[in-house]
Amino acid sequence: MIKVSILGYGNLGRHLVSALKGIDRVSLTQVYSRNQPPVPPDGINLVGDLSELSPCDLLIAAVSDDALSALSEQLPKDVALVHTSGTVDIDALGGQEKRGVFYPLQTFSKDRAVSFKNIPICLESNHPELSTVLENLGHLLSNQVVWLNSTQRRQLHFGAVLVNNFSNHLYSLAEDYLNQHELPFELLHPLIEETAKKAIAMSPQKAQTGPAKRGDRDTINRHLSEITDEELQEIYKLLTASISRKYKPSK
Amino acid sequence: MIKVSILGYGNLGRHLVSALKGIDRVSLTQVYSRNQPPVPPDGINLVGDLSELSPCDLLIAAVSDDALSALSEQLPKDVALVHTSGTVDIDALGGQEKRGVFYPLQTFSKDRAVSFKNIPICLESNHPELSTVLENLGHLLSNQVVWLNSTQRRQLHFGAVLVNNFSNHLYSLAEDYLNQHELPFELLHPLIEETAKKAIAMSPQKAQTGPAKRGDRDTINRHLSEITDEELQEIYKLLTASISRKYKPSK
Repeated sequence: MIKVSILGYGNLGRHLVSALKGIDRVSLTQVYSRNQPPVPPDGINLVGDLSELSPCDLLIAAVSDDALSALSEQLPKDVALVHTSGTVDIDALGGQEKRGVFYPLQTFSKDRAVSFKNIPICLESNHPELSTVLENLGHLLSNQVVWLNSTQRRQLHFGAVLVNNFSNHLYSLAEDYLNQHELPFELLHPLIEETAKKAIAMSPQKAQTGPAKRGDRDTINRHLSEITDEELQEIYKLLTASISRKYKPSK
Repeated sequence: MIKVSILGYGNLGRHLVSALKGIDRVSLTQVYSRNQPPVPPDGINLVGDLSELSPCDLLIAAVSDDALSALSEQLPKDVALVHTSGTVDIDALGGQEKRGVFYPLQTFSKDRAVSFKNIPICLESNHPELSTVLENLGHLLSNQVVWLNSTQRRQLHFGAVLVNNFSNHLYSLAEDYLNQHELPFELLHPLIEETAKKAIAMSPQKAQTGPAKRGDRDTINRHLSEITDEELQEIYKLLTASISRKYKPSK
């Protein structure tokens, strides 16, 4: 049995609580939250002060990156503490002798359920005992557990920004553009889904299509002549140039 | 019964042939291809010369945008001809009295099967008889049939470039970056899939997360300091600025 407490009851905190509650070999004892949450976790001891935390095998901090160092300093030296951030160094938790990282690589939203089974869990640890706890917990939650150091995790997080934050923003730009022209964004739904599935099935490089890849200047110029927004023009030009360069026929 | 022939046996041509062959109320009589394809369509009369085409209700041109006008000029005036392009004007088919567009909004690849049922079919026609044929055929193939004029179709196609060509290129940039750092791209697969599904379920604007949205300069600067590629730096800065502007807290 792994005894776990969660620090922070925001977006990720809630998802972790509901995932860990469903696992027999995990005892989720306490959740710490500075503010009384509107819907407190069912059947779990919610504490508002760090001093109320009882001993456990692992404290998982699901708080904002900025809050991590201060949190680490307020906790006893002898607890095993991990954070859940893609970009923060393991040593930001300098207050603890056993420190580590438990980073689930996924996008979490309050209103959307996710299955941890398919989420890669990226682990890091500075202590063999903690490593064992993390490895066991990782495999209880997910089918995909990897060990990465802080640099590798940051690199992976950069990739995540490209495929999630930036791709999603392109969806948003498309939605705004279509709305402006009174066209329903829903028409693009099947394409959005297939684009993701195809890149996964075939690799994005093989999946690439479109005017920039074909070097179809007519279509590119037709598109450019219709975009009035300067920022959108710039994004269109830059990504078109980047695709052209990548797929330019070699001489 | 709708009698259809397909002109062009490339990527889209093949997908149309296999979709139309499965529909009882469609008689797919002939496929025209300038070159003998390596695997000719099973049970269908393949012709290499336009003069060999027999009369039918509809000719669907699945050839490159550049080839459309010349093709239209080589065909008799009295055939009903549609093209399948997202960006070419209906009047590029100036040689025919009955002309139109049958644009399936999806990304097609040779080795990947797609179901037309979920693909929006965008129709345009200059003639009521052709409109009826297109409307009927559209509904036989797909659950989603819309009428768009040439300008609207081009605008929709621009949206498709954003969510498909550009998003897929971001996946590719992420793959290259991770490969450079010897990290497996597969770690991003679940995130890519969830990003698409979430944008469809919640709208991309509500789904947006990440350092640019949060205004998290520390993470942004950490990422920027690690990108050595100038083009990738530029893309990162431009998309980050675009997200920041969109979600900037109003004063």
